[in-house]
Formats: sequence, C-alpha cells, structure tokens
Amino acid sequence: MADILHISPLAPKSFPDLPRVAGAEFAAIEAGIKYEGRKDVTLIRLAPGTTMAGAFTKSSTRAAPVLDCQVKISGDSTDGAAIVVNAGNANAFTGKNGMQATEATTNAVARCLQLPVERVFSSSTGVIGEPLPYEKITTKLEELKTQLSETSIHDAAEGIRTTDTYAKGSGQTVLIDGVSVNIAGIAKGSGMIAPDMATMLVYIFTDAEIERATLQEMVSELTEKTFNCITVDSDTSTSDTLLVAATGRSGARVTSDNGQFKNVLHEVMLDLAHQVVRDGEGATKFLEVRVTGAADAKDAKTHAMAIANSPLVKTAVAGEDPNWGRVVMAIGKSGAAADRDKLSIWFGENLVAENGWISPEYREDKGAQYMLQEELKITVDLGLGEGNATVWTCDLTHGYITINADYRS
Amino acid sequence: MADILHISPLAPKSFPDLPRVAGAEFAAIEAGIKYEGRKDVTLIRLAPGTTMAGAFTKSSTRAAPVLDCQVKISGDSTDGAAIVVNAGNANAFTGKNGMQATEATTNAVARCLQLPVERVFSSSTGVIGEPLPYEKITTKLEELKTQLSETSIHDAAEGIRTTDTYAKGSGQTVLIDGVSVNIAGIAKGSGMIAPDMATMLVYIFTDAEIERATLQEMVSELTEKTFNCITVDSDTSTSDTLLVAATGRSGARVTSDNGQFKNVLHEVMLDLAHQVVRDGEGATKFLEVRVTGAADAKDAKTHAMAIANSPLVKTAVAGEDPNWGRVVMAIGKSGAAADRDKLSIWFGENLVAENGWISPEYREDKGAQYMLQEELKITVDLGLGEGNATVWTCDLTHGYITINADYRS
Repeated sequence: MADILHISPLAPKSFPDLPRVAGAEFAAIEAGIKYEGRKDVTLIRLAPGTTMAGAFTKSSTRAAPVLDCQVKISGDSTDGAAIVVNAGNANAFTGKNGMQATEATTNAVARCLQLPVERVFSSSTGVIGEPLPYEKITTKLEELKTQLSETSIHDAAEGIRTTDTYAKGSGQTVLIDGVSVNIAGIAKGSGMIAPDMATMLVYIFTDAEIERATLQEMVSELTEKTFNCITVDSDTSTSDTLLVAATGRSGARVTSDNGQFKNVLHEVMLDLAHQVVRDGEGATKFLEVRVTGAADAKDAKTHAMAIANSPLVKTAVAGEDPNWGRVVMAIGKSGAAADRDKLSIWFGENLVAENGWISPEYREDKGAQYMLQEELKITVDLGLGEGNATVWTCDLTHGYITINADYRS
Repeated sequence: MADILHISPLAPKSFPDLPRVAGAEFAAIEAGIKYEGRKDVTLIRLAPGTTMAGAFTKSSTRAAPVLDCQVKISGDSTDGAAIVVNAGNANAFTGKNGMQATEATTNAVARCLQLPVERVFSSSTGVIGEPLPYEKITTKLEELKTQLSETSIHDAAEGIRTTDTYAKGSGQTVLIDGVSVNIAGIAKGSGMIAPDMATMLVYIFTDAEIERATLQEMVSELTEKTFNCITVDSDTSTSDTLLVAATGRSGARVTSDNGQFKNVLHEVMLDLAHQVVRDGEGATKFLEVRVTGAADAKDAKTHAMAIANSPLVKTAVAGEDPNWGRVVMAIGKSGAAADRDKLSIWFGENLVAENGWISPEYREDKGAQYMLQEELKITVDLGLGEGNATVWTCDLTHGYITINADYRS
C-alpha cells in the first residue's frame, strides 16, 4: 500500500489559506473508525438561517447517508444545521443496519448541538459492506463540540480523507454590493470511486445570504459543469455527496440574477473538481479533453467522456504517446454522431488530424515532445454543429493497478 | 514490447486440428507490410455458389475495408468469392486514400482469381492512420494463388495475427440428414480494440448449403450471444469484422429450422470469442459474469457489461480479491434497474451477498481461496424479473499497462 501514500505529483504545493466563513464552525478528531493515528470524524456546525443545497450520486446502490441527506436537503433553515462525516467506513451496502447507524449518528449530533435531526446531514466514506461502528462517533461528539471553530476548516479537510494523498481546499472572496463575501470549500476523492477505498465528498460554505431554491438551482447547474465533468476510472461512487451551505452572516444578499457570485462559486467548484482528478489513483498526467462542433452539447459530452474514459487513450497519455488513433477510436465507439472525414484533432496547439486523416503539417516528433508535459489538452472538432463540452481526467498507470490490484482488501 | 510476445497463460495447449471445408482454400505469405519474418497477407478462395454472411463494427469511424465489405456482403453468390487480409496496417482513418487502397487490392484479387470485384472481401488490421502499401499485397497475389489449399487454414490463422500471442481456431463436424458437415473458423484479436495494435477479425467456413438470408439471420443472432458478449477493455474496434461462408460442397442443406447446425455454429463462435478474451492484453484470469433476475434481457446485459468493464472489478480480479463491493458499485452505476436490498452475489459457488448486505454464511477466506483460480465466475441475481445475460472478460493487470503505455507507438 506504500505507493498510494506518496503525495500525487499533480498535487498543489500546499493547502490554501481559506477565507473564514462566519457561521460555519469545524472540528475533527481521532475516533479510530479504521485508521490509527489520524483524524477520521469531522463535525461542522452551521448557524441558524443557513440555507443548504446539494447534489448526490445517481447510483442505484447508494449508501444510507446519501439517502438520508436527499430526504433532508430541502428542509426548513430556521434552526441552522450540522454535518457529521466519518472516514474509514462508507456505511454502504449494509442493509437495514445502514439506515439505523445513520439515524443513531444524526440523532446524537442533534441532541449534542440542540438541533432538529432533520437538519443534521451525514456522510460516511471508506470500506463498504461493514457495519458502521457509530458509537465510536457518538462518544466523541461532546469533545468535538468544544473544539468547534470557524478557523478549523483545514482540520475538516484532513478529517474527511481516506486514500487521498493530500487535503483539498479552495476559497475566494468576492465583493457584492460593497460587502465582501467569502466562499470556502473542501473535498476528498482519489478516484471517481473505489468502493472500499475512496469516494468523492465535497462541502462548500459561504457567508452570503441566498434563498434555498436559488442556491439549489445554482449548485445543480454548476455541478453539471464541474464535478459531473471529471472522471478517473469511469466508476461511479455509491456515496458521492456535495453540500453547499450559505450562512448569510455577511449580510450580502445574493439573488439568481447575481452572476458574479455564481462565477466565483463556479471557480471554487471547478478548482475542487480538478484537485480530485489531480489526486486520481496513480495519476501522473492531468488531461483536459475539449470537444467542439458536435451536433449538440449532449453529444459533445458523450464524445468527451468516451475519450476521457478510454483505457487506451489513458494508457497512451501515461506512455507519453501522441496516439491520436486511439482518440479516433474513442469517438467512433461513443455512439454519438460523428463523421470520420470531418474530424479534426489537436494535441495542445498541434493540429494532428483533419478531414479523416493525419494532417500534412503534423510532425510526430512535435506531438511526442508535447506529450512530455504534465498538463495536457486534447481538442477534437467534429465539424457537425455548435455543441461543445470540456471534461477532465488523468492517465492510467501502473500506479492505478498497484493501488487497486496489488493487495487484498 | 517483450511482454506482449509471451504466450498468454490462458492460451489453449495447441492449435486445434480443424476439419477440412470443401470449397474453401487458404494461403498466407510474408509480404513485409510491417512485421519482418512472419506471414502477414492471407488469401482465401471460396467456391462458386458460396453464400456469405457477416457482422461488422458499429464504430462511426470504421475503416475502408469494413465499409467495402458491408456494401458487398449481400451480393449474388453465383461466382464464388475471395477474402484477402493483411496484418500490420489497418487502413483506418486514412481519408480518401483508404478506399482507393481497398479498391486497388480487391480489384487485383478479382483479376488474379477471375472473380467479380463485388465478391472480393478484404480486411486490414494493424497501425491506423498510415497509408496501406497495397502494392506489397498485390505483387504477392500470383504466388499466393499457387499456394491455395483446403488444408492450409492454420497458415491463415497465423497470417491474420498482429499482437495476438497465439493463433486462434475452432471447428466441429455435425451430421445433417446423414451427411457430415464441417465447420472451421479462425480469429484474431487481443483486445476488443487497440487501434494501433490489434482488432478482432473472424472468418468461419462450412461446407453446408445455406441460403444467404438464412445464414445472415443465424450469424446476426449468434453474434449477439458470442462476439458481442466479450470485452477486454471496453474499447470498440474500427475494424471488427466477422465473415461466415457456406460453400455447400457437402451437399447437406441447412434451413432456418435446423437447430442442430445452428447449435454447432454457436459453439464454434463462442469458442473463438473466448479465445479472443483469453488472449486479452495482459490477461491472467478468464472471468464469466452472469446476471439473472433482471427486469429484462437488455438490463441484464447492461449490468453484466458494467461489471465486466469496470476497471475496479477487473483489478480486483487481478489482485485475487473477492471484492464484491466493487460489483455492487458497478451494478449501481450501470443505469439499468436494480434494487440494492434485493441483490444476491456469488463468487463461484460462494454466496457472498444477499438482501443488500454481506451473507451471514459467507467467509472471506473461502472467497479469497476461490479467487486464486484462473477461471472465475461472478453471478448476480437482481431479484427483479426474468432477464438473464452472460458475458466474458479478463482481468486488468500491469501487463495491459505495459503493452499499451510503456512504449511509444
């Protein structure tokens, strides 16, 4: 397992200095759920009036905490809210026991923080199929409560990690009607999914004041352009959860027609999404796949994901091989509309193929030189219409096999 | 590249002794298309009256020879037919040049064997995007013609190989109305696709007498249950081609209501399909995935393919890890109907999970013991309906990464 403890070569230099979000307090603690010597239970308290929005995995086998969050997400915000997260056990595929453990945990948090249980959200990430030892969580709540602080978000980012090789955070400050509004988010994830190892969890906080419906609309739209546009291994989590909380403490009111806040929230979500890809299991290259000229946006995303998920494209990237033939193959298999003889393909700025054949001006050594870079961009123009899409992925390396095959779980 | 020259550990002991099919003659020769010192051009002559049926890749970027075969496959059978195959160059994504090369090749074969060009089928497999040096083929035709023999099918099986680690053949003899009918087939393929390395080509011959429409109906139905039920890496070829030829020379007439012939043809097709999986790039395990109790057959196949294509399931198999959690994940992501709490999962005969949780009688050491086998079977019952499907795949290993990433093409 040593390999997966090395920090990803694509990791940011350090955890960012995140702006403080008034009304959002954090604490993390060692509860020994699975890992020894690291924080694995995180508690987040959100001030009264905090509105919440979310996005969740579409998996038909999703875990109990996800089902519980989906029921609660649209609830009344008068009394504030809380989020409790444990790492080491996903409480997924645990039958009736799963919902019982989730209820026991959220009820204990509700009592501890004097909140209605309908306002207590939870996530569990780690091994699946094993009963969640929720007493290890509940017995730590009073201690966690005493540690809650608006300045401890980095602890929370550490506390939600499983096989992540680094803690992920992103934040920004934006002026709205002369008032500075803070946004700070954390994420964990090191494969779109590996059920017994890592899933994607994202929590974003802002002190802006936003009505729940408006916030949900923004979050749903932006999720499609960010977290739903990344892939590491094409496998979909049973636990993926995104929660966005607006405490309103800045006093700045954000409405649906405020594009400025939405743009900054988009940047924070995209940064966190990219950080998940950069921590992709075994990743050594960060790849952006852009498809233009598709019949429509849906076709564009289908083609882009077919390229980003192709094991042959991903291994070619790992091998620093400008193998545009595999890109052509991926487009061909995607099922979306394509005309072989109208295709154009670029590796970075290098036009590789056009009109259904290799470009006369393309030089293999140029392409090979480009592939040596750590950050790569493959662009495909289908020459059919106006549909565009951009997705992000990483390469497929021996590291991925080592992490997922070279040990017994 | 050394790794991929080793013979697959899943390979049959030897090439089978195939029955002779009257009216089908074979020859293969070294033409130096790409490889040195190995046969890379194969010529097959089929007697007058031979009916032909086929199945082809659905890729929207399919190669010129495939498009040419699709136009010709339903043609008149009076004059017999020919098949010419080259390895080393796929003549795929070669623009207008591609069809010109295919026409030049098939026209030369037509002249050489005095056949109408409409009855000359061709396949090309190997590197894509490079112009096919068809003169290297056409200059060898006269020599090939002199070597044509009904006993040289093994040469043909060798001649169509690219990165295959062994030649693939399968045949059977069946009595129809007291007359013995022979079926012999050959295949190549070492990944569902690797555009610059291997694609799947299959040619099957019989001396039964079958009307073209009847033969096509059988082939289309059986392809769904055989070649369309295997996957190595979820990537789809630009060149996949299956051609079945019935020379009629046995005098035994097969009609659509003759289940016996169809069953034997099914067995030959399935055997060849399994041999392609057994030669999957880097394969060390052969995995059968069976899904029962799905809402319908389509859902069953969707679930089965989601499991068989999941990198996490395939790496778990490589790691001999009875990781049923990843099977649950794959079912959850497939998009087809599933109820987490009705799922049952078996690894071999071991009931691993039932009613949405691990089975009380399951013992991890039993599962781990089972995973050590070279041939594995994962069965999932969805408990929803009557839909069943079975698909076959191999594991995902360092060998696959080595073959596809550790060199520059």
